[in-house]
Amino acid sequence: MKIVAVDPFYLRMSEITTAADGTQDTLLVRIRTDAGLEGWGECDASPLVSIAVYCCPMSHGNIINIHESLLGETLDKPEDVLRLSNKVLRNGLDIQHIQHAYSGAEIALWDLIGKKLEEPVYQILAEMTETQSKPYPKLPYASVLFGDTPESIYQIAVGLCEQGYQAAKFGWGPMGKHGEENDIALVRAAREGLGSDAQVMIDAGVVWGADYDTAYNRANAFAEFSPTWLEEPLSPDAINAYKALTDKKPRVPIAAGEGSSTYRMAEDIIVNGGVNFIQIDTGRIGGIMPSFQVRKLAERHGIQYVNHTFKSHLSLAAALHVFATNLDFNLLEYPAANSELSQSLVKQPFQIDPDGLVRVKERPGLGVDVDTEAIRPFLVPVKIGVGSDTVFVQSSL
Amino acid sequence: MKIVAVDPFYLRMSEITTAADGTQDTLLVRIRTDAGLEGWGECDASPLVSIAVYCCPMSHGNIINIHESLLGETLDKPEDVLRLSNKVLRNGLDIQHIQHAYSGAEIALWDLIGKKLEEPVYQILAEMTETQSKPYPKLPYASVLFGDTPESIYQIAVGLCEQGYQAAKFGWGPMGKHGEENDIALVRAAREGLGSDAQVMIDAGVVWGADYDTAYNRANAFAEFSPTWLEEPLSPDAINAYKALTDKKPRVPIAAGEGSSTYRMAEDIIVNGGVNFIQIDTGRIGGIMPSFQVRKLAERHGIQYVNHTFKSHLSLAAALHVFATNLDFNLLEYPAANSELSQSLVKQPFQIDPDGLVRVKERPGLGVDVDTEAIRPFLVPVKIGVGSDTVFVQSSL
Repeated sequence: MKIVAVDPFYLRMSEITTAADGTQDTLLVRIRTDAGLEGWGECDASPLVSIAVYCCPMSHGNIINIHESLLGETLDKPEDVLRLSNKVLRNGLDIQHIQHAYSGAEIALWDLIGKKLEEPVYQILAEMTETQSKPYPKLPYASVLFGDTPESIYQIAVGLCEQGYQAAKFGWGPMGKHGEENDIALVRAAREGLGSDAQVMIDAGVVWGADYDTAYNRANAFAEFSPTWLEEPLSPDAINAYKALTDKKPRVPIAAGEGSSTYRMAEDIIVNGGVNFIQIDTGRIGGIMPSFQVRKLAERHGIQYVNHTFKSHLSLAAALHVFATNLDFNLLEYPAANSELSQSLVKQPFQIDPDGLVRVKERPGLGVDVDTEAIRPFLVPVKIGVGSDTVFVQSSL
Repeated sequence: MKIVAVDPFYLRMSEITTAADGTQDTLLVRIRTDAGLEGWGECDASPLVSIAVYCCPMSHGNIINIHESLLGETLDKPEDVLRLSNKVLRNGLDIQHIQHAYSGAEIALWDLIGKKLEEPVYQILAEMTETQSKPYPKLPYASVLFGDTPESIYQIAVGLCEQGYQAAKFGWGPMGKHGEENDIALVRAAREGLGSDAQVMIDAGVVWGADYDTAYNRANAFAEFSPTWLEEPLSPDAINAYKALTDKKPRVPIAAGEGSSTYRMAEDIIVNGGVNFIQIDTGRIGGIMPSFQVRKLAERHGIQYVNHTFKSHLSLAAALHVFATNLDFNLLEYPAANSELSQSLVKQPFQIDPDGLVRVKERPGLGVDVDTEAIRPFLVPVKIGVGSDTVFVQSSL
């Protein structure tokens, strides 16, 4: 089949705050073929900057937009996705933002291939790589932001328990901003609210920059509350500081990687940074295949792969296909503080089954359908003019 | 002084081809202060994608545009540039394209500080870092693209000799696309045209991807023509392949680094890739300070720093301030196949002095003035609407 349309859509809530809540807006990418099929993907990236990568005028042979690279191309088999990814990334060699923007399209291509072959994406990946194709359920951890005070955090944690979560991650907000005593109080509140049986994860939201000593001290101070990990204590690029931190063997494992915009960045923080958990956002790193390659690298390095997902369940679907077939990689970031936009985005959100686990959908492609009626009110049409040319007009949803 | 305006300008030639010629378009950034001063910088990046980073609506606290981060800020001393860079990069943590876009603004901030302090930028950098401040002249190497045939390359090389160049780099085009014999013929033609006294550099334009064996074989095959380096034989991200290549100690030194969009990427290809020359584009890596930090890293590692510049002499000025004070880093990439746009962009282009060398300008700031009259015909006004808001309208040049 031939690709006949590649359309990005910018959706957002009416009010946007500075809270580190990625569900306040989103960029969806829809790809249509002449076989009447359509695939969807979601980027965890700036919608406007990403749209520009779909329509920017050519600067030379190394700055060619994604729309031009994909339109009219053939898509019949999984290998075509790899070929098109190579083409897009080569044509966009000098566009720094190419991976963030392309992620949505790459995911949409896998959705399309799955629909054409009538197979779930995880199964196609297993066949391509000749690995076992049995999917395993995952333990969802509720991913929420810290409240401003220990009291509010405790209440949030109690609420998550009542909803049946057996694991929860608290992040950003006040962490790291008011000294050690306060930081410890935040973690204590989370642990006490969740109870001793649940898993608790702490996300420091890059707050200590390159200061690995403070990160080390906090990790050890948090150890009495037995968090599963301390996440992003340092900046994504501070690889030498990560190495210094992990070399000191803090009493809590270190997680990072959501800032990986390329496979190499993930490899760098694994191999040279020494992290214990690698967290990959399929909507940033260039889509499903580079995420899958990081999963494979994590397997070889004996560390744990986890998804980073703070968008809708369309992103969650894409994330899950990447590592559904690995029994040991059993944790799933599950956004639990969703906007109305992200909650209504797919028709088949992932439910938590009675055993407390989440399972990949046994349906073709990603396995979820975008609810275009529900999200239409959130569409903000974009229009871009360059000189006398209109280089982007909004397609209808 | 306070920053009162931050304006990007998209300029381009009327015709754009796929040739790897970065002078076909450009993005300039102008910053004005309430003291009546203005500074200028240039990005080597997609103009439209970069403009989007100056105006994208906020997604959350990690996606805030550059304009909002800079407008109204105080700029009085060199440390303010560092503070503002930290703010911009932190606010743009989740915008992959932040460095490409910010480079122009960062350079403009240095230009402003230099004008305010009435000092050239290289001198301010030397004072900040307490290093010696004597500038040294550089040997410009003409940077041109390979012709399609050995004959045309020979003619280009002869022409460069006649213009007085003592060094020239040939890149991209047919290199690596038609087998070893042809590749060798291209290099032979360049050498024969330049004569035996000139330095010749070969730029393979990432053509061998991750295939370090071919890169190794070509480097050795080219050795008889004594090139100063073989540049970018592999993809910017192929760090393990660079390591495999440099570990084999090819008979020609390996150069790379223009793809470094962050300081860490440059550090990675130096420390883990083992390159012999590190080539940094000040208009991509986030501006003058991260480039200067790479220069310092190169000094510590005993490898050679070289600018990557394929834009106007505004970029050349910014590039030169970064390493003017290092005697050993004596080569300067000097674009010699310029478009009319890039040729007319500054009022004081860098001339090659009678001794064949190029010197940094002993004037405040970058030392060159943008010729707004000359470039106005190349301006393509950009207009961006998001929903009912116009988020970008073109300021006048």
